[in-house]
Amino acid sequence: MLTLYHHPMSPHSRFVRLALGEYRIAAELREEAPWERRHDFLVLNPAGTLPVLVDADGVVVAGAGPIVEYLDETRGGGLSEHRLMPRSAPDRAEVRRLIAWFNEKLYAEVTEHLVMEKVYKLQMREIDGDRSPNASAIRAARANIRYHVRYVGFLAGQRNWLAGDRISYADLAAAAHLSVADYLGEVPWAEDDAAKDWYARVKSRPSFRPILNDIVRGMPPAAAYSDLDF
Amino acid sequence: MLTLYHHPMSPHSRFVRLALGEYRIAAELREEAPWERRHDFLVLNPAGTLPVLVDADGVVVAGAGPIVEYLDETRGGGLSEHRLMPRSAPDRAEVRRLIAWFNEKLYAEVTEHLVMEKVYKLQMREIDGDRSPNASAIRAARANIRYHVRYVGFLAGQRNWLAGDRISYADLAAAAHLSVADYLGEVPWAEDDAAKDWYARVKSRPSFRPILNDIVRGMPPAAAYSDLDF
Repeated sequence: MLTLYHHPMSPHSRFVRLALGEYRIAAELREEAPWERRHDFLVLNPAGTLPVLVDADGVVVAGAGPIVEYLDETRGGGLSEHRLMPRSAPDRAEVRRLIAWFNEKLYAEVTEHLVMEKVYKLQMREIDGDRSPNASAIRAARANIRYHVRYVGFLAGQRNWLAGDRISYADLAAAAHLSVADYLGEVPWAEDDAAKDWYARVKSRPSFRPILNDIVRGMPPAAAYSDLDF
Repeated sequence: MLTLYHHPMSPHSRFVRLALGEYRIAAELREEAPWERRHDFLVLNPAGTLPVLVDADGVVVAGAGPIVEYLDETRGGGLSEHRLMPRSAPDRAEVRRLIAWFNEKLYAEVTEHLVMEKVYKLQMREIDGDRSPNASAIRAARANIRYHVRYVGFLAGQRNWLAGDRISYADLAAAAHLSVADYLGEVPWAEDDAAKDWYARVKSRPSFRPILNDIVRGMPPAAAYSDLDF
């Protein structure tokens, strides 16, 4: 069995959980608090970041991008139309561009702030004294997310799925980040109908159910978070 | 012929230039000032970041990570021992972990600050009025780079090259970032002999020569920048 070190509100962890769900690969989930910098976790991933996958044979793969490439290389061949990476090099480049867009750009501009200020600091406080949320970081995230929702809508309006005709890792990366913001009630869905319609399609997939059942201690999800008809 | 949109002091652009050099693929280099947000460049890459590769058949690949994967997929098969990605999935995962380490973590902690404060702001000033370097960002980069040089030394002390027995994209990514800092005289080579020995080996490769000839307007390189016996 695979093991995935994750945090329920880490968007990069959710991305990998969605990929495993789409591929119907069972994995043992171990919750990790990356800010604790636990020694045995740093041995697995010196960067100290989530997620980290340990394959059944002990192979350690650190980071969402390397993990989804590894899953494609080790399990993708037999998946035919369920494969989450396209076959042609140009199409794969487009999926990777969008993975980087969501995992790096949207993360730096939106979800990194929201998760740090609204979730991680709450959990750190239990062990580490007072840590107040940085209001200006939250304001910046709220301004930036509008642009990202419109970009998702732009892509969804042009294509069946974000990177092309078929669902791909690009959709899962985008949905992972937006689902974290959505838990916190921070996605302005009224901004773009095409983005909302696309998210409703992703949200109704079986791979999404465990994500919709996530609960952060002391912080219930926003009202419509698990509602498929939001 | 391929076209690469780049900036001589963009570490991600240098990473791709080194990969093209190792593969002996000729490319036309077009210098781009990403802060100008030129319309035709944003059409190629909506993120507005460097580098962007346009293949001979018009395929556009945006971002260093997607570009080196694309080069491996489209040209890697015939390269046998010159290929910069290993064959096995676990070894590929290790190369990708290190690419992300240098392109994301070292960049955010070191080279993003150095390039923005010491190079880009100088060039922006020509068109955009006064922009003073942020001294605290430069101080943070100087503190952080020590740790990264030691990590490179740690890897180089354990392995022949950073990700294993053979040179790989991991070495080129690390060398690209360190070469930008080195141009600015900001690499504390005395920190770690193994890191310095590794860099001397990379620096003496033919693919590195164009990088060592780069000149930024109004800012000559540090004294030992192009010295192979630094």
